[in-house]
Amino acid sequence: MKIIERTGSRRRFFRRGLMLGGGLLAVPATEAAPANETLKAIHSLRTIHGDFSDKPVPDESVQAILDASVRAANASNSQTYSIIVSRDPAKIQKLTGYRANCLLLYCSDHTRSADVAKHLGDPFNPVNTEGFITSSTNTILAAQTAVIAAKSMGIDSLLTNGIHRGDIERLWEILELPQEGCFPLIALLLGYPKTEPAYHTGRLRGPGVVHYEKFHRLGKDEMDEIVRQYDDGTLHIGLNDDWRQKGHKHYLDWYFKEWIGRFKPSAGESAFFKRLKKCGFIDGQRA
Amino acid sequence: MKIIERTGSRRRFFRRGLMLGGGLLAVPATEAAPANETLKAIHSLRTIHGDFSDKPVPDESVQAILDASVRAANASNSQTYSIIVSRDPAKIQKLTGYRANCLLLYCSDHTRSADVAKHLGDPFNPVNTEGFITSSTNTILAAQTAVIAAKSMGIDSLLTNGIHRGDIERLWEILELPQEGCFPLIALLLGYPKTEPAYHTGRLRGPGVVHYEKFHRLGKDEMDEIVRQYDDGTLHIGLNDDWRQKGHKHYLDWYFKEWIGRFKPSAGESAFFKRLKKCGFIDGQRA
Repeated sequence: MKIIERTGSRRRFFRRGLMLGGGLLAVPATEAAPANETLKAIHSLRTIHGDFSDKPVPDESVQAILDASVRAANASNSQTYSIIVSRDPAKIQKLTGYRANCLLLYCSDHTRSADVAKHLGDPFNPVNTEGFITSSTNTILAAQTAVIAAKSMGIDSLLTNGIHRGDIERLWEILELPQEGCFPLIALLLGYPKTEPAYHTGRLRGPGVVHYEKFHRLGKDEMDEIVRQYDDGTLHIGLNDDWRQKGHKHYLDWYFKEWIGRFKPSAGESAFFKRLKKCGFIDGQRA
Repeated sequence: MKIIERTGSRRRFFRRGLMLGGGLLAVPATEAAPANETLKAIHSLRTIHGDFSDKPVPDESVQAILDASVRAANASNSQTYSIIVSRDPAKIQKLTGYRANCLLLYCSDHTRSADVAKHLGDPFNPVNTEGFITSSTNTILAAQTAVIAAKSMGIDSLLTNGIHRGDIERLWEILELPQEGCFPLIALLLGYPKTEPAYHTGRLRGPGVVHYEKFHRLGKDEMDEIVRQYDDGTLHIGLNDDWRQKGHKHYLDWYFKEWIGRFKPSAGESAFFKRLKKCGFIDGQRA
């Protein structure tokens, strides 16, 4: 690690970052115990993969989660999102590929603004890519607020972009979405696990994820350390532990060759991109 | 409001949504008291606009916020983000336009993956627009987790996309960002307010924001209700209260004509879009 110039409190800051890491290469997978109820809720967050029980999430809890969700900050307090609630497991399955009894679908959405502006006889400019990214940020800030609110009430979650797989037009058909100005970003399924997950997944927390004062491009030793952390089954950072049986030297070899290697983007425009264009969100390419 | 077909528990769900609203048009601005510490933290979230005090955020708190932040869910546990920490007020001002002593800059970032893949001799596909949106979602989920973690520790925040205003290339220059694969999405400033904000901002919580089972396009009465809520100064949903003096009939007239009306996107590609293209994130237009 290149240790950059530092003085006074910045020096203390950097040194502490390294000391907490217990070494020069990476912070350890273990960390100090969370100091309050909210941090405890955040550190206990977990993703439930397709094994929600049939126990329904109470309506009152859904309302409390929605009320919390909209408290997230958003640009100009414009709330450029729509949250579509579904309690219909068959519909949820068609939309997300998962079975659950409660879905909050978070859409980056400018149609409310556009409709109200038209209603008042006010101008409303078309939304370009920057506007779409800003509204998407508003949307995901609200979505994660819902996730944490739910967890604090004992309700687990699955955030999935499975909505973008398969025929993306089904979202517009099933939910009667406006053809322009509205794009579903992430599905939040809420519920209770059928069985307790066997472990808590780990995370990278050091170089390559956290940078100080400027972007730090990883050196060879730091990359080896990341490879090592993924290989260490006790840290549970990887998605599986049978990559050795599958003939790989490292977990990340499996990940790059087999897992994300499957998604080879075509040279042209994806269906996802075409849909964004149809929504009006691609600069200079309004459909 | 069109009340759609409903049976059994779905009927109860819908009716409760309406009853909680105290009327057909919108849920009220007042709501039930939060039931646990995390919900209290979420409901006390507030944005500090450029009046952070000089009191430094302790290094230990920054570390705890970072440790919480990475606990957010993310697609394939890929952590396709970089968090750049700065404690340099002059630099923070140049990047965001605001004065603060602690910045966490959240970047949608695939360079760690690309670098490690290359290091291992593994393939790494170029990242298309869908991949960028997925990584951006990962990034913002982590950012909001930091916001809530900070609030639970008594630390306030400002999320700003001010980084996208002015010459966007300054971000790459000041932070030595990789030319490809990395795009800063949102700046999170942390600190303590110089003065207590005069009020807590309100939110829309009813039709147009929350939809049940399918997208509900607003009717005339519902739009009038939204206009009314923005006009009601006691709800504090608008950005200001001098829109009447400025000659507008409704807050939203000011908002559409003067506030967002200023941002008239050009017909072609914005600097923002060109930067995304340079990063390799626009389908079929790799620079």
